[in-house]
Amino acid sequence: MAPGPRGSGALFLDLHMNLPPSAVLGARHARVRQVLDALGLDALIVTNASNIRYLTSHTGTSGVAVLTREAVHLVVDFRYEEAVRGLQSSDAACPGLRTWPVPGSYEGAVLTCLSEIAVSAVGFEAAHVSVARHAWWRDTIAARALGISLRSTGSIVERLRVIKDTWELVALRESASRLTAVAGTVLGAIRLGTTEREVAGVLEGAIRQAGYERLAFDTIVASGPHSALPHYRTGDRRFASGDFVVLDFGGILDGYCSDLTRTVCIGPPSGEARRVYSAVQDAQRAAIAAVRPGIDASAVDAAARCVLDARGLGEAFGHGTGHGLGLDVHEDPRITRHRPGIAPGETIPSLLLEAGMVFTIEPGAYLAGWGGVRIEDDVLVTEEGYEVLTSVPRELLSL
Amino acid sequence: MAPGPRGSGALFLDLHMNLPPSAVLGARHARVRQVLDALGLDALIVTNASNIRYLTSHTGTSGVAVLTREAVHLVVDFRYEEAVRGLQSSDAACPGLRTWPVPGSYEGAVLTCLSEIAVSAVGFEAAHVSVARHAWWRDTIAARALGISLRSTGSIVERLRVIKDTWELVALRESASRLTAVAGTVLGAIRLGTTEREVAGVLEGAIRQAGYERLAFDTIVASGPHSALPHYRTGDRRFASGDFVVLDFGGILDGYCSDLTRTVCIGPPSGEARRVYSAVQDAQRAAIAAVRPGIDASAVDAAARCVLDARGLGEAFGHGTGHGLGLDVHEDPRITRHRPGIAPGETIPSLLLEAGMVFTIEPGAYLAGWGGVRIEDDVLVTEEGYEVLTSVPRELLSL
Repeated sequence: MAPGPRGSGALFLDLHMNLPPSAVLGARHARVRQVLDALGLDALIVTNASNIRYLTSHTGTSGVAVLTREAVHLVVDFRYEEAVRGLQSSDAACPGLRTWPVPGSYEGAVLTCLSEIAVSAVGFEAAHVSVARHAWWRDTIAARALGISLRSTGSIVERLRVIKDTWELVALRESASRLTAVAGTVLGAIRLGTTEREVAGVLEGAIRQAGYERLAFDTIVASGPHSALPHYRTGDRRFASGDFVVLDFGGILDGYCSDLTRTVCIGPPSGEARRVYSAVQDAQRAAIAAVRPGIDASAVDAAARCVLDARGLGEAFGHGTGHGLGLDVHEDPRITRHRPGIAPGETIPSLLLEAGMVFTIEPGAYLAGWGGVRIEDDVLVTEEGYEVLTSVPRELLSL
Repeated sequence: MAPGPRGSGALFLDLHMNLPPSAVLGARHARVRQVLDALGLDALIVTNASNIRYLTSHTGTSGVAVLTREAVHLVVDFRYEEAVRGLQSSDAACPGLRTWPVPGSYEGAVLTCLSEIAVSAVGFEAAHVSVARHAWWRDTIAARALGISLRSTGSIVERLRVIKDTWELVALRESASRLTAVAGTVLGAIRLGTTEREVAGVLEGAIRQAGYERLAFDTIVASGPHSALPHYRTGDRRFASGDFVVLDFGGILDGYCSDLTRTVCIGPPSGEARRVYSAVQDAQRAAIAAVRPGIDASAVDAAARCVLDARGLGEAFGHGTGHGLGLDVHEDPRITRHRPGIAPGETIPSLLLEAGMVFTIEPGAYLAGWGGVRIEDDVLVTEEGYEVLTSVPRELLSL
């Protein structure tokens, strides 16, 4: 893997990728600038990679953006120069983009940019800047008397990303719908005696075949007792008669994630297996039916939890009901009982769903040593209620 | 993908994985404790996932470790309880481990742990704690009068990880050697008219087939003009006659990364193609030959650069010569001209190679619009000189 100046990961640069047109990026900039106005900031240093992509379409794993009232400054090293030039000569060009080179470190290049464009009140993303990086900026600004005041900000871009724009919805719908073909391929590959790893291989081949850029996360194929571990990944276990097999997978298309889980049974399910499966299926149905604008996210979680509680499976459902989906496979809104606040440790009393939010609904029941069931779909909040973006049957399959 | 309380990524939990025995972990703890003694710290909060894995064998993507003189406290949420119990009942048990639950947020749980074990001078990893998390800790410690003094530390565990222990060398050797079979499979799949994406699919299938847990990074298959982009990934381009195809791939085995690049030619190479390939091959040979304990890392980079300069390709080699390899695919030492310092922006004057370091050697030459060549192997510094861990022929193949 080619090393960068600071050893960053690989660039995803696919010249065939669909990118949001310039006007879409411009509308996003305008919304960030409204927030900067309200906070009295001249500029915002954007260091989170997904936030940078959202604002500039730059897809490198290195890079720092500085958004001001007039421009978007992108600090990127030589590896990305050609990619940025290509972007800027297309109809997906980022409006007002100016690039800055990185002759030494990124930290130094950002300060050079800030001092040359003469901004003074500058916000940074407190959740995405390390204490070490911040300390270096602060000390260097003081030592060089640059006259820049750094101010901590929280989730400015993330809050905008929670409501998907029309361009994003096209990408998310397509990303979700292509999982139907993937599911068809993988269900055909499951039988008694197959191993988890073999099925994961088929899944990943099918995801690539479907045209996804990459996996949205590490594929989960969990069989028998492994299916009781919500975050088990894949091993060498062979499917045995009566096993539940949990398949959790997704791809990234044009930058946007999809995420689906189905649970199947190897051979005929026992009565207990049918009972647990039905409970999870009903819980998922209830949660989806609860989705509409204006409802609290925790009410969607409660709808699923209530069904499982009533079937004696409340304790077996240890995680939240869902998570937001977009450029990140885990983003806001969280569909849980206890939602994390903006500050770590804080709990937000209420998060009301709005049209344009996209998240998973994925209740499960996990019985240690026996097995588990999870069923997951991707859901969009619409003006009228909801739209399920994934379309794969949810009935219990016996393979 | 099952959501965590704070929406973290998936756990890699493979019950068949080899794990370092307890005594190896104990030796690592002892080395960290020596540093704590020297710094006058009662405890170190470890938040970097690879550092946590190195010290505890906990492989979850969530979790915080607190290492004290007597114990290793692991703060983990319910999803990992069963995995940690399994680990602790094995001969890979982490010595002195005590787990702490996460009833609310991780931040809160860490403070609960720190105040119950009554430590006062507590280091944290400044490069791996965000400004937001640190501010919440600092303010909460003050508000609750917990009497804890948080102190910024830099790279304590990373510096230990630079020198691999015997257990790690076994894992790294095996991880590197299995790439031979992967390379054989993929070279057999390359011919005129194949697409980059098809070959990437074969590569990833072969990596899984070879028993790796997962890809070490996103596979690169870059053909023709794409091969001139060092961080291009994969697209739909069909291989044409005379194309260079750069294949850059690796897997993770028992947690340890391997990383290999080969460049092949579709059909007979032109004279210019042969010339560029030979230059890169000679540059790589020279850099490998320079490896021995006591030499400065930048001298290895210089050995490669000197060959390419002499062939008029100095400008075409825009990245560093290599990067450390271990639990992370990019770690110290960096084999570059300008090495980043511990503080951002700082340059370390000298980094002497020591026996037990493992890194890639991967010079390249990239000619925009024409194509590029990169050749990469994984190298261990031994007492006598070096050992190349990967074993795939480096001659120019015409396919």
